[in-house]
Amino acid sequence: MATSTEPANKKAKVMPKQIEELAIDTIRITAADMVQKAKSGHPGAPMGCAPIGHALYGHVMKYNASNPHWWNRDRFVLSNGHACALQYVLMHLAGYKDVEVEHLKNFRQLGSRTAGHPERHLLEGVEVSTGPLGQGISNAVGLAIAGAHLAATYNRPDGYEVFNNYTFAVCGDGCLEEGVSSEACALAGHLGLGRLIVLYDDNKITIDGRTDIAFTEDVTKRFEGMHWQVLEVAEGDSDVADIIAKIEEAKKCTDKPTIIKVHTTIGYGSAKQGTAKVHGAPLGDEDLANVKKEFGFDPEKFFEIPTEVRAFYGAVLARGQQANKEWDALFAKYGQAYPAEHAELIRRAKGDLPHDVDSFFPKYQPGDKAKATRVTSGEVLAALMKHLPEIIGGSADLTSSNMTNMGNFPSMQRGAMQNRYIEFGVREHGMAAMLNGIHAYGGFLPFGATFVNFIGYCWGGMRLSCLSEQQVLYVMTHDSIDLGEDGPTHQPIEILALLRATPNMSTIRPCDGRETVGAYKSYLANKNGPTTLILSRSGLPTFENSSAEGAMKGAYVIDDFTGSSDQKVIIIASGTEVLQAVEAKKLLKEEGVDARVVSMPSWNLFEKQGEAYKKTVLPQGVKRLMVEASSPLGFERYADEWIAMTTFGASGPANKVKAHFGFTAENICIRAKRLLAAST
Amino acid sequence: MATSTEPANKKAKVMPKQIEELAIDTIRITAADMVQKAKSGHPGAPMGCAPIGHALYGHVMKYNASNPHWWNRDRFVLSNGHACALQYVLMHLAGYKDVEVEHLKNFRQLGSRTAGHPERHLLEGVEVSTGPLGQGISNAVGLAIAGAHLAATYNRPDGYEVFNNYTFAVCGDGCLEEGVSSEACALAGHLGLGRLIVLYDDNKITIDGRTDIAFTEDVTKRFEGMHWQVLEVAEGDSDVADIIAKIEEAKKCTDKPTIIKVHTTIGYGSAKQGTAKVHGAPLGDEDLANVKKEFGFDPEKFFEIPTEVRAFYGAVLARGQQANKEWDALFAKYGQAYPAEHAELIRRAKGDLPHDVDSFFPKYQPGDKAKATRVTSGEVLAALMKHLPEIIGGSADLTSSNMTNMGNFPSMQRGAMQNRYIEFGVREHGMAAMLNGIHAYGGFLPFGATFVNFIGYCWGGMRLSCLSEQQVLYVMTHDSIDLGEDGPTHQPIEILALLRATPNMSTIRPCDGRETVGAYKSYLANKNGPTTLILSRSGLPTFENSSAEGAMKGAYVIDDFTGSSDQKVIIIASGTEVLQAVEAKKLLKEEGVDARVVSMPSWNLFEKQGEAYKKTVLPQGVKRLMVEASSPLGFERYADEWIAMTTFGASGPANKVKAHFGFTAENICIRAKRLLAAST
Repeated sequence: MATSTEPANKKAKVMPKQIEELAIDTIRITAADMVQKAKSGHPGAPMGCAPIGHALYGHVMKYNASNPHWWNRDRFVLSNGHACALQYVLMHLAGYKDVEVEHLKNFRQLGSRTAGHPERHLLEGVEVSTGPLGQGISNAVGLAIAGAHLAATYNRPDGYEVFNNYTFAVCGDGCLEEGVSSEACALAGHLGLGRLIVLYDDNKITIDGRTDIAFTEDVTKRFEGMHWQVLEVAEGDSDVADIIAKIEEAKKCTDKPTIIKVHTTIGYGSAKQGTAKVHGAPLGDEDLANVKKEFGFDPEKFFEIPTEVRAFYGAVLARGQQANKEWDALFAKYGQAYPAEHAELIRRAKGDLPHDVDSFFPKYQPGDKAKATRVTSGEVLAALMKHLPEIIGGSADLTSSNMTNMGNFPSMQRGAMQNRYIEFGVREHGMAAMLNGIHAYGGFLPFGATFVNFIGYCWGGMRLSCLSEQQVLYVMTHDSIDLGEDGPTHQPIEILALLRATPNMSTIRPCDGRETVGAYKSYLANKNGPTTLILSRSGLPTFENSSAEGAMKGAYVIDDFTGSSDQKVIIIASGTEVLQAVEAKKLLKEEGVDARVVSMPSWNLFEKQGEAYKKTVLPQGVKRLMVEASSPLGFERYADEWIAMTTFGASGPANKVKAHFGFTAENICIRAKRLLAAST
Repeated sequence: MATSTEPANKKAKVMPKQIEELAIDTIRITAADMVQKAKSGHPGAPMGCAPIGHALYGHVMKYNASNPHWWNRDRFVLSNGHACALQYVLMHLAGYKDVEVEHLKNFRQLGSRTAGHPERHLLEGVEVSTGPLGQGISNAVGLAIAGAHLAATYNRPDGYEVFNNYTFAVCGDGCLEEGVSSEACALAGHLGLGRLIVLYDDNKITIDGRTDIAFTEDVTKRFEGMHWQVLEVAEGDSDVADIIAKIEEAKKCTDKPTIIKVHTTIGYGSAKQGTAKVHGAPLGDEDLANVKKEFGFDPEKFFEIPTEVRAFYGAVLARGQQANKEWDALFAKYGQAYPAEHAELIRRAKGDLPHDVDSFFPKYQPGDKAKATRVTSGEVLAALMKHLPEIIGGSADLTSSNMTNMGNFPSMQRGAMQNRYIEFGVREHGMAAMLNGIHAYGGFLPFGATFVNFIGYCWGGMRLSCLSEQQVLYVMTHDSIDLGEDGPTHQPIEILALLRATPNMSTIRPCDGRETVGAYKSYLANKNGPTTLILSRSGLPTFENSSAEGAMKGAYVIDDFTGSSDQKVIIIASGTEVLQAVEAKKLLKEEGVDARVVSMPSWNLFEKQGEAYKKTVLPQGVKRLMVEASSPLGFERYADEWIAMTTFGASGPANKVKAHFGFTAENICIRAKRLLAAST
């Protein structure tokens, strides 16, 4: 690599370059090379954030690139995920095995791990999938909660500080404009997450131009209002020492998260630096060549890593391996001093469940008092939480409605981070994003709760649980018009369709306690994606033939043909509507029709069953009526006709609202007979 | 009505009661009566906020209950919509014709206008539908934007201040915890909306208990950071005069919105006051009776409005009618001085379009340069904006991607509120909620834009556009895996299903410029609900037989059978996939199959057509293959087989990603032949 022989100019370099500067320029140029080669991507933020990235990966962070799963590693989150060329270059320099030069060259290409935005399930070392703005910083709050919780729970005096990692997030203006980040950051301040450090790339530019067209708030004041420490780096383009110093200062503040405003220049080095033009498109050959010249690199060469930079990061890797080794020794010693805790941690890290997990579940029997499935869910969850310390979570200020703390677990608070019930506040979107972060830490089974309808508030986070294949539990209650008086602003219509249309989402709407047990068993077994429980407000009996096993198959016969007639019909229902379906079966019998009721709590679980099983449940040649208080989108897959919701609901007592929209045994009976009449 | 004869106690009243106190206690008790009679609802907030409500409806607000549509009325938004018993009582006292005592008694009953949360399409005088927290305050920002825009555009010197109303919002803690409110309030501060005044019911209680379990931020500091004025009322339970004084002080600050923290006691007067127990359940007979005694009311009577209170509000009505009359006179005089502006305002108020609106649309012809539908959308939108001043809107920081400002309209800013292009910032959810507010003001056709995938960020607001039947336009681009390199974090899979499952949502995915014209025509005609355009990133030709009229029917034959073979198949496609379908038709012909291509940009528009038309497009007896890069949920409605997305997408160049998932002419050809083979 050639050093510059150009005369001094506005960005003149001292020769020979200091290693810090050389490393940073290498990062800038390599990121720009990647975007140029991909003919798409975002060079501006990686070039602007290169000093931040180098400060973290080259100096501050405690991590071991050869063991991305080291539990006590510092976490890095690139909240402005579009800047991922930066992350990939840093991971390459750091020595992550899956980021070779060829991967940098394959940036944004089909099948490459170096995707257009970082995806955690594609690439080891990426903690969370980012790109949708505001998610990463909120995930980082979750990661910090997880770390603080493990520290408060498992660390012991006299040097047994097994968990003490930091969570670092880099974010841009966009992340701070998104409401989800306000939600998560407010909770981070409330909980006093001292080991969360956010580096805010304050470059004054967004896609549409200067931030002052839409984003003029006083970020310092806002974050201080949320009880954060706010620090500032004036010369973020060049002063790595100051970035490092401010991070060290942040670490000293142990009772507040810190945000460091780092003033940078987007696209630093480019002729277009400091403008929106450098945000989301390659620099172009000429500009890229000039940047290289300016930085003293050979403009003819691409993906050129100077030996000195390789050597520098080689030393970083060695330090990281050593730190990991020391921690392993500490953890082994901890195991001798605290064998029970050690064993529990090992189990949690592996994601194993205790062998007797089946014995934890409550039992439900016909004749039990009618209970809403939100209540049976609450009972199951409380029973599991009692035995499984990895379950932590809470509700977005609807605990008493969602029934998510029937075990009366004390709430996680500043100074009481060992507690497992999280008071998320009225912050659904932040909750989902934080759950993804908690799960990403490893060793957790996190859950969150709100009304089903407010899945529409937190879909940005829930979708990423699906894409990133994370085992997050969403406990969603008040599942339909059955919620009654609160009315259509709170009655979901479209949500089941949304969930069913989303890859990797397991959606289960149980009809009673036994099916609720099945739903939770299915959730515990479903390690590569989230599970959403769709739960009732109203009480339901335990059905005579309901079963957890049936629910786990997605659909099963809950009330079968009796052979009373040749006029046969199948009624398919889920959740609260199973009750009306079972009642309708009795009415139909009186009218000379022999009905089978199929309880279908989960389409996705049913679709995983073999064809033979499916055919026993839904034999060909028998007409089927589906009954579900939801949009009928997709019902053609299973049924000939349906009773469903094609309008919004209405405010009124639940039984009247349900009757108004046709969810009664009588109407099911009428519709079933009409279906039979039409087909004969 | 009896005044108390009880001895003095902790809340002892002076006798005779002052009218203010009497009115406020009447409001409290009547709201509590409503909740008690409904056996469901939220008494706490109405009782706590009664002084605020009385200050607004009884003193401060300029409104005419006998003309809820007076354009320059002050707007009232109950952002904590669960407190709507308060709003209904106030509307009853104020004299709104649709809120008689019988409606108060029918609170939360099926078919009643006094629904569990306020719904604007049910009840005149309710400006926006609220309940989902954070929406109302964000709607209020939209209402204030709308008012400021009309004032800046149409007011004239020398007394022609036709638009000068205020927007008042009452909100609780929950609204401030929600990220959507941060987004909207940040923009309100940025724009300096001086006529927006929020009264924050600072009662320290949420559903889950004291706010300090999750919400401890310094609201003053946070709002000052967003450039709001923050005022405070210390004795909000009793000091109406101070509430009024602070509102007057707020009005004096013309370049900043104001939030007034009003310290109140939730459930004031109840034995359970100041606790979460009074939040969401009736007081119970005994407590209610005691409240009445305490306030000097007869505990045996219900829905009892003292004559003095009726007289007080009678005078308010008379003042409001007089103010309305004076404004009518001013507006008539304005009409003489500024006839063109006057005529335009009349037209806007009626929601009429100019008679020559059809001539505004650009023309597209086969042979034109290929264009993405985001571009043709941009062209149509720019052409319409040129002629229709009621169209205002913008993008959530994706203008150059969404192509929503191809007319180069100057951006709305503080001091330039007459401009029509709104820089929403990276705030999708706030954008949707603000659009609902702008539309609710009357005389506007608002639009907002982001990527299709980020509908998942703003669904909370979009859903309310549907429920409230508001004509809002959502211009959503980058509609599928076709966006390419940005990858699966940005590639929608489930969104079309979500939109299709939602009542009142019109969803249109055009395939070229002519269909884009049809999509906009359909939007302009669709006055009772929102329209979402689903637009491509990639270029498409103008198809030989595409048409706006066809698009407006939802589906039509874009490339018909040629009679070349008896082996017939129908390929149904939308958007970018129409291109591959038309290509596949040619390949199929070579293979002896005669294909028809049906372009189906909109399911909901197609479903409105008569059966006869539907059968001409999709005749029985011909197998159909659907091709759409989206979740196949519901495809059974139209097709026998499909090529669709059952997993998340991938990062890579668009053509490679599309090919990888089977969206090629060749694969369509193979699949069509396989379909024919299977069915013979």
